[in-house]
Amino acid sequence: MLKKTVTEKKTFDVIGTRPVRPDGVPKVVGLAQYGADYILPGMLWGKILRSPHAHARILSIDTSRALALQGVKAVMTGADLPEQTFKYLGPERTQMNFWHMQRNTMAREKALFAGHPVAAVAAVSQKIAEQALELIDVQYEVLPHVIDVEKAMEPGAPLLFEDMRTRGVEPEPAAPSNVARRCEYTLGNVEDGFAQAHEVVEMKFKTAPVHQGYIEPHACLARYGSDGQCEIWSATQGHFAARTLTARLLGMSVSDLVIHPAEIGGGFGGKTIVYVEPVAAMLSKMSGHPVKMVMTREEVFNATGPTSGSAMTVRMGVTRDGKIVAAQAELKYQAGAFPGSPVLNASQCAFSMYDIQNVHVVGYDVVCNRPKVVAYRAPGSPIVAFAVESVVDELARKIGLDPLEIRLKNSISIGSPSLWGPHQHEGMRQTVEALMRHPDYHAPLGPNQGRGVASGFWFNGGGESAVSIQVGDDGSVTIASGSMDIGGSRASMAMMVAETLGIPYEKVRSTVASTAAVSYNHVTGGSRVTYATGMAMTQASELLIEDLRVRAAQLWNVSVDDVEWERGQARLVGAHEKQGETLSLARLAATRARTGGPIGVQWAINASGQAPGFSTQFCDVEVDPETGAVKILRYVAAQDVGRAIHPAYVEGQIHGGVTQGIGWALNEEYIYNDNGHLENAGFLDYRMPVASDLPMIEAVIVEVPNPNHPFGVKGAGEVNIVPVMGAIANAIRQATGVRMCQLPMSPPNLLEALDPEDED
Amino acid sequence: MLKKTVTEKKTFDVIGTRPVRPDGVPKVVGLAQYGADYILPGMLWGKILRSPHAHARILSIDTSRALALQGVKAVMTGADLPEQTFKYLGPERTQMNFWHMQRNTMAREKALFAGHPVAAVAAVSQKIAEQALELIDVQYEVLPHVIDVEKAMEPGAPLLFEDMRTRGVEPEPAAPSNVARRCEYTLGNVEDGFAQAHEVVEMKFKTAPVHQGYIEPHACLARYGSDGQCEIWSATQGHFAARTLTARLLGMSVSDLVIHPAEIGGGFGGKTIVYVEPVAAMLSKMSGHPVKMVMTREEVFNATGPTSGSAMTVRMGVTRDGKIVAAQAELKYQAGAFPGSPVLNASQCAFSMYDIQNVHVVGYDVVCNRPKVVAYRAPGSPIVAFAVESVVDELARKIGLDPLEIRLKNSISIGSPSLWGPHQHEGMRQTVEALMRHPDYHAPLGPNQGRGVASGFWFNGGGESAVSIQVGDDGSVTIASGSMDIGGSRASMAMMVAETLGIPYEKVRSTVASTAAVSYNHVTGGSRVTYATGMAMTQASELLIEDLRVRAAQLWNVSVDDVEWERGQARLVGAHEKQGETLSLARLAATRARTGGPIGVQWAINASGQAPGFSTQFCDVEVDPETGAVKILRYVAAQDVGRAIHPAYVEGQIHGGVTQGIGWALNEEYIYNDNGHLENAGFLDYRMPVASDLPMIEAVIVEVPNPNHPFGVKGAGEVNIVPVMGAIANAIRQATGVRMCQLPMSPPNLLEALDPEDED
Repeated sequence: MLKKTVTEKKTFDVIGTRPVRPDGVPKVVGLAQYGADYILPGMLWGKILRSPHAHARILSIDTSRALALQGVKAVMTGADLPEQTFKYLGPERTQMNFWHMQRNTMAREKALFAGHPVAAVAAVSQKIAEQALELIDVQYEVLPHVIDVEKAMEPGAPLLFEDMRTRGVEPEPAAPSNVARRCEYTLGNVEDGFAQAHEVVEMKFKTAPVHQGYIEPHACLARYGSDGQCEIWSATQGHFAARTLTARLLGMSVSDLVIHPAEIGGGFGGKTIVYVEPVAAMLSKMSGHPVKMVMTREEVFNATGPTSGSAMTVRMGVTRDGKIVAAQAELKYQAGAFPGSPVLNASQCAFSMYDIQNVHVVGYDVVCNRPKVVAYRAPGSPIVAFAVESVVDELARKIGLDPLEIRLKNSISIGSPSLWGPHQHEGMRQTVEALMRHPDYHAPLGPNQGRGVASGFWFNGGGESAVSIQVGDDGSVTIASGSMDIGGSRASMAMMVAETLGIPYEKVRSTVASTAAVSYNHVTGGSRVTYATGMAMTQASELLIEDLRVRAAQLWNVSVDDVEWERGQARLVGAHEKQGETLSLARLAATRARTGGPIGVQWAINASGQAPGFSTQFCDVEVDPETGAVKILRYVAAQDVGRAIHPAYVEGQIHGGVTQGIGWALNEEYIYNDNGHLENAGFLDYRMPVASDLPMIEAVIVEVPNPNHPFGVKGAGEVNIVPVMGAIANAIRQATGVRMCQLPMSPPNLLEALDPEDED
Repeated sequence: MLKKTVTEKKTFDVIGTRPVRPDGVPKVVGLAQYGADYILPGMLWGKILRSPHAHARILSIDTSRALALQGVKAVMTGADLPEQTFKYLGPERTQMNFWHMQRNTMAREKALFAGHPVAAVAAVSQKIAEQALELIDVQYEVLPHVIDVEKAMEPGAPLLFEDMRTRGVEPEPAAPSNVARRCEYTLGNVEDGFAQAHEVVEMKFKTAPVHQGYIEPHACLARYGSDGQCEIWSATQGHFAARTLTARLLGMSVSDLVIHPAEIGGGFGGKTIVYVEPVAAMLSKMSGHPVKMVMTREEVFNATGPTSGSAMTVRMGVTRDGKIVAAQAELKYQAGAFPGSPVLNASQCAFSMYDIQNVHVVGYDVVCNRPKVVAYRAPGSPIVAFAVESVVDELARKIGLDPLEIRLKNSISIGSPSLWGPHQHEGMRQTVEALMRHPDYHAPLGPNQGRGVASGFWFNGGGESAVSIQVGDDGSVTIASGSMDIGGSRASMAMMVAETLGIPYEKVRSTVASTAAVSYNHVTGGSRVTYATGMAMTQASELLIEDLRVRAAQLWNVSVDDVEWERGQARLVGAHEKQGETLSLARLAATRARTGGPIGVQWAINASGQAPGFSTQFCDVEVDPETGAVKILRYVAAQDVGRAIHPAYVEGQIHGGVTQGIGWALNEEYIYNDNGHLENAGFLDYRMPVASDLPMIEAVIVEVPNPNHPFGVKGAGEVNIVPVMGAIANAIRQATGVRMCQLPMSPPNLLEALDPEDED
């Protein structure tokens, strides 16, 4: 159906330039409307009552006193959501477990973590809603709880689900367990591999769960009409996915729910599922009023997904000349209160930067009494990379090889073995070479300073995207996709369309459409949008050019074969009197009534052919031996993005990923007390990096084009976070001689490691 | 490109049923968001300063004191809108005159009517905005004004445009005039026709301008970003047209402006142009804040378009046996302050119900110091029909023929002469026959009672429409068009899609999309939407079925020729093992990732082939000889709609059109004082009919399918108003013996006619 009409371009007019960001001015001047900015007449405020216990059976909920409070319009509990029947995940990984999701939205039989929603109220003001929460009487039977992943795996640990058996174990275990799933991946024979090794390093690691730390808490406005039609304004990474989930949780047809995308104040994976949307919609249904819900920061920490904490063992073997011959890992990932940690991702990413013949990875997905984890930038990969890259660093030390050299020698390349058959893309090696060429890599270091290197892998995504392009009366163009813009996709989409059509970027207005106006788009995540939605946009542009050529041929009364598309206009070729004449897009728009009417196309794809992303980074640190404080002196991150459509946004992605990694490496962690309560549920106590904590981060864009994408795009949003903790750990190792095997490498933890005897 | 896959149906599952209205519940319970219901953070209120003079030169405008008032954020005048260069209408009728439109939006050199906008203010509250208006100092030179159409045509009348020459007169006149245009239409030879006539009737008529009287005043919210991008939420009959007009008036690219359709509280033609949108957008641009504007009712009357008042002469001749052989008309229509009365429509509609060999019509478009007229339900036709149908009634009386008989004998039918060549559609005759069969047509009448008959013609529209259809995860369907729903098009679109796809109506959610999400749709007007947008919807549905058959063939691994679409599912036919197996839409949606990804289509057409609408009506009245009050006892309106998709909405259209016609006939008029000020600018003094004024109106739906539309649709919204004033005038004639040649036939006017000598 699709005929390629645009000659492969070697040079670009728009791609690779840095036009003004379409989201820039609205965000800076306050025009942008985030989830909390929507207002409707007659609107109520919704608030959630949360479990004070880490683990408790819910004996009864009495909402009568709350309902009687003046100004309260609706009170709901988990029983108001229709029960979902599908209890445990089937063998197919992509299947969504709505029985769990429903209970994550609002508890039924048990509260599984402190902060777990147990009821919700809609009232005419936030204050009355909060007062009403205090009037809800919940009777609990408090149960023993478990927070730590390894403790949760022990026999006799308190069970979150009394009937859950570990999947992935044959035969099915007789005893219930908190281990929801075991996964295993093998390449070659790892024992044979270790037999070839001259040096073997095995280490254990422990990492803390960390939060995405998006600026904007979860917020939405829902209006459920008495006609059964619902509209939601939501700041989500995927309003189509949010529609699917919310409709299912409410037991409604997906087409009876329209979700409008709000501007989003960060997501980083944390806004790929729903928390407030189904609650607000149900409260709206019950009350007959629009209901707005905005989480507090405390609620965000207590009850939305961080990424997993973990316990890991990694063992790798290397030959004397630096060839890694065997790699093994055991990964235990916290899932939080419901199954679904990113341990499958982690198991697959662990060694995927490297060409290794023999690999064996076992992963465990473990529930415990914490909020359910959710995606966080390259979910799963940064955790395991901290372990793997620390071990690689030790291997290099053992054989006296430069840390870039060992990575260069073992870089995965086309034809290398991988879990998916022979590897198909370059990119890893080029990120290592980019750092080797970097002048600062050999800059001298001072006392207490060290330099660390690490690499990372991320799959990058493809999948379902749908777009439309409309040509306005004056030849200006409006494009719409259903992909939420969290990292500049409005700009990159407009640039790809402008490049393909041959018109200026300024002529293209880029929008994100509601679920009613364009077909399904999968969530903005997995670094998939510039690749997949971008491919849909370029293909749609090519279809549009086809249509424009047909229209020009009609106007010239010639065969369409005699019309070429060139620099935004149709050109008449062949033996015609008017040969060489052109028709601009504006002219074709002005005459469209004579050639079939309005000009526009819609196009949808399920994109495959995505290429993985690699990043290699080095950083210089200085450790204060008195305080254990680590100062980042220099940070250089090279990343293969295939092609940078708008380099400033790509650099922004790299800056952001590295910054988040620095926080994860040095300070961020969830601190629980003995009662299973989170003690640092706020930005004062949960220490994220601020500008003064950071050096200028240098982003080195490496471009090894992906042949499967019209402009070579690979995806740029995530792999930049993967190497950071390893790079910093390796730099600290060089600065101090101490190998940190636990995150965060915070001042007290580092001080303890520097001088384990010192009790001070 | 489009292959028809749906067998022509003789019976329907959805078409012709009366499902629950999708707009019903939201409107009744208050969920529907009208233009005035939108709110944005930081929003200002805009207010307009209006000329107190009917005609005045603007010498100066000093806004400094208003700008200095605390809380005022912007003040604009006409000089802030970029000057448009295109001053007078070219020969092509459809060309829009932006020089005029700009001045209608805000005066520049002169104020041309009392109420003409001369400046506008944006302030933090409505009250402050109103205070600021009082601080704007405008120096006027008051000029003589002219209100009446015939006086405006007289030599020496005050000229609104000192350089305007009458178009349509060869050679161009040397002297300027208030006559903007003369038009002339001829069939056969009218003098020859009159020579064949046995009876000739000539009468003069005068009608008052009347307002559409929509419930919702004009309202919008505009946000113009400092990035040059603007969004407007507007209750308009055409958000694409509003975008084109507003963008042009502000000098911006159309794609930099997105207009979101609000629910609309009536339009009837009156919301097909822009008043507040460009002002709010400009005030937002100047102030940097969103600006909301809501007209008062007084502003609606003083400064938005009514339809024309007129002075008309009609002369018709008939043979002894009832054949009309000649028809002539001279039509003088008020345009208001800027050219553009519907006199061209009127000239074409005047005699188009009838098969007449000899026709001659001359029309004049005349400016005068009143608000610019704008479309009102079948614009132009009801005015002239009042005259023509009164004359036809007198012709019937002269030759002693029943008024339905004379109409039956002269009904236009296929092959009759028309201004557009041989007539191509039936329908007129069938509306007459429907009344002939009606039992009440021969019901006895009491004292002071009379029965009147009249017919009407309307073109009905086609033109540009664009739609999309998206299939949700569960096989439910969302459809979007850019056609504002003012009379039930959300329902009729969903019904046509459901019928074509073979799925239940309840599975289809119908929406109106913003200008960013679908391609151009012309205004909802001219009774075009069910025809043209409906045709786009059915064609899009057929494209979707094509796509679904291809997907089913992929899943079955067979040729697409072996897949039929039947009752909402794909069926495998031909010699296959699984022959007879089916795949539902839900199943095809669930497996879409394997067959190409998201399922949806977009489709646009410039529809032609529309068929005209005819209506014939009779009514019984009783006249109180003491007061002149007319009571409508019975009203029966037959209308050919081609096919009634949702009969309840069609009946609603007929009820509405007749009701508006009753108001126009009996009470509504603009009353000006000597200063050119409107004295009845409110619903207390401008008397529209209320429920207690009305009988039960009986709608008789006649269905003569239009072969050019997949379901036979012709358009149903307008022709119902056309015969009403004639029918009532004819009934009054029978009840009283008095022929009323002036509208309204209000108690004082009727009393004066009944007893012209009585000075009481």
